[in-house]
Amino acid sequence: MHKSRLEAFSDGVLAIIITIMVLEIKVPHGDTVDTLRPLLPVLSSYVLSFIYVGIYWNNHHHLFQAARKVNGRVLWANLHLLFWLSLLPFASGWMGENHFAALPVALYGAILLMAGLAYWLLSRAIIQADGPDSLLAKAIGRDWKGNVSVALYLLAIPLTFLHEWIAEAIYVGVALLWLIPDRRIERALQETGSG
Amino acid sequence: MHKSRLEAFSDGVLAIIITIMVLEIKVPHGDTVDTLRPLLPVLSSYVLSFIYVGIYWNNHHHLFQAARKVNGRVLWANLHLLFWLSLLPFASGWMGENHFAALPVALYGAILLMAGLAYWLLSRAIIQADGPDSLLAKAIGRDWKGNVSVALYLLAIPLTFLHEWIAEAIYVGVALLWLIPDRRIERALQETGSG
Amino acid sequence: MHKSRLEAFSDGVLAIIITIMVLEIKVPHGDTVDTLRPLLPVLSSYVLSFIYVGIYWNNHHHLFQAARKVNGRVLWANLHLLFWLSLLPFASGWMGENHFAALPVALYGAILLMAGLAYWLLSRAIIQADGPDSLLAKAIGRDWKGNVSVALYLLAIPLTFLHEWIAEAIYVGVALLWLIPDRRIERALQETGSG
Amino acid sequence: MHKSRLEAFSDGVLAIIITIMVLEIKVPHGDTVDTLRPLLPVLSSYVLSFIYVGIYWNNHHHLFQAARKVNGRVLWANLHLLFWLSLLPFASGWMGENHFAALPVALYGAILLMAGLAYWLLSRAIIQADGPDSLLAKAIGRDWKGNVSVALYLLAIPLTFLHEWIAEAIYVGVALLWLIPDRRIERALQETGSG
Repeated sequence: MHKSRLEAFSDGVLAIIITIMVLEIKVPHGDTVDTLRPLLPVLSSYVLSFIYVGIYWNNHHHLFQAARKVNGRVLWANLHLLFWLSLLPFASGWMGENHFAALPVALYGAILLMAGLAYWLLSRAIIQADGPDSLLAKAIGRDWKGNVSVALYLLAIPLTFLHEWIAEAIYVGVALLWLIPDRRIERALQETGSG
Repeated sequence: MHKSRLEAFSDGVLAIIITIMVLEIKVPHGDTVDTLRPLLPVLSSYVLSFIYVGIYWNNHHHLFQAARKVNGRVLWANLHLLFWLSLLPFASGWMGENHFAALPVALYGAILLMAGLAYWLLSRAIIQADGPDSLLAKAIGRDWKGNVSVALYLLAIPLTFLHEWIAEAIYVGVALLWLIPDRRIERALQETGSG
Repeated sequence: MHKSRLEAFSDGVLAIIITIMVLEIKVPHGDTVDTLRPLLPVLSSYVLSFIYVGIYWNNHHHLFQAARKVNGRVLWANLHLLFWLSLLPFASGWMGENHFAALPVALYGAILLMAGLAYWLLSRAIIQADGPDSLLAKAIGRDWKGNVSVALYLLAIPLTFLHEWIAEAIYVGVALLWLIPDRRIERALQETGSG
Repeated sequence: MHKSRLEAFSDGVLAIIITIMVLEIKVPHGDTVDTLRPLLPVLSSYVLSFIYVGIYWNNHHHLFQAARKVNGRVLWANLHLLFWLSLLPFASGWMGENHFAALPVALYGAILLMAGLAYWLLSRAIIQADGPDSLLAKAIGRDWKGNVSVALYLLAIPLTFLHEWIAEAIYVGVALLWLIPDRRIERALQETGSG
């Protein structure tokens, strides 16, 4: 089984997910600033979700560049990841339409959590297919970001019901963790022993 | 004619089918658990259809890896398969919205049946193009899963009107048949002579 | 400029066009045969349009296989073709929803006509880029199907207002012209001098 | 990191953007010319946006053909460009539905402006990754079109509130600037010192 077609299919699904989310920003009736204002939460929800899908595409790209073999287990682990990401447009739209109310924000976090776990399962499946001395097995030792992200989502979901903005701040924080160039942070964290 | 562009086009269509199905899960008005509850049948219908499209993508991938030649007949047999799969979002949405009522469940089974037959026609068209001593002709001898699936769909459709859940259980069973790693089952069935 | 990226982009657009047309078949409220009946014209309109996009993808595939060079003019001629094909889901939906009334049927024919002309312009642009002794220039001498199709669309549009089914029959006829394996017809027509 | 997967993902997103815009042209109820008439502004808005996405795809194609290296910064600069372009279907639909009223036309210009700036940032990121003596660094010296476009968008946005058609004319003008074959214009501008 060749990894190129798996990559092409995943690219297709991720490209569609990132683009159909914009359909949640419904064209309003009327041409005044007031008609745009209710769209602001939907737009900010879209920006966050766009960044998350971008991060997943970026990580997916790196993961399969390191992968050598693709078997049935890898294929289904990949579809499992795409399944959770495919629910992001729904969760994102629900969160935006309800102005970041507690339950939608918690559901959004739950989808991020499941996608994070699915990504971890996918990386394990690739390592199993490639063998313990594979390139990926060595690289994954440094995957503190994945673990920290999952832990933060687990923290964010109950905190939603204390105040929605705590969870929102955590989601934004996790996104920034992946966005900012990581060499210096990684080095710093490795020195303190958490790398 | 090169098979790579046919694969790329099919990947595109399957990626879109698997993703637009999620648009049937409409973002509800309201932010309570009660607003989510009516979405549960639509969600479970989505999960089943997601798995089916995943299975077809997986099988399509294997089929064309074994294929050597692609001619006009193969191309149209492939489009015929994509046509029936393109109706899955509709059938899935109708089944979910009507809480798995008899007629939508039967229609869903009919679409699965037609897709199964279209897949069989596609594999025959590839064997005809490749010649009787082709790699695929040998591999297809073991395609007991395809035949069993079609037989089960044929059984499920009338049973829908006895009770919907019988048909549902058959659809889930066929999906599991394809999902679980098949080496041991295949061996067992070959020993009993059905392989 | 490489033709592979142009092919990939066109495949993406055609895959989306062929798939979003199915969104016009709206999931009905209710689970009886009566709720499905009004969808029949939309479904038959979808089948016809699916076949047409399939034919265009097939021809596009052959056209670029014969092409050697891709320049700016070819690129824009290709986008021009994709533009008209992108209007097919609209025309198809309008024709289906209005049960093949005269004006929608005429508009559908006009879109097919424009796509046919755009395809002809695209083939000319590729020949110009490749030079008069190119593979495509020789092959295009036999493009009687393209010319006949355009002539038939031109005939169908006014005939719509006599009776819609005349135009419909012509659209189906043109589609069959492209679908049936053409070696014998081509030979026959070449013998009568029209090849 | 290989640029081919970045190109494939961008092709996917651009193909979806260019195609889902057509969904803003809603199928009308009724089969008369009168039911089509209100769709004309939506259609002309679609044509303009289709051409703009086509121009961006064309330029993106050229940009990455000249690129040698792709790093994390290039990847995020690319996603940033795709983000602004993904808002074009919304801006296009809003502009069309409101018959080119001032505010929607200004917003459309603002999206074009942000996409223009994002494209400029992307080209800088590629040059930084490739080094100052790269092929792209030399080619970009002649990118007067990009600069002129951004300047014209900046001019068009306030002029919208004087009269919408001034801004519209500027958008069409910028599109024509990219559409017409540019060798002669480029040469003329280089002679007058603006190249």
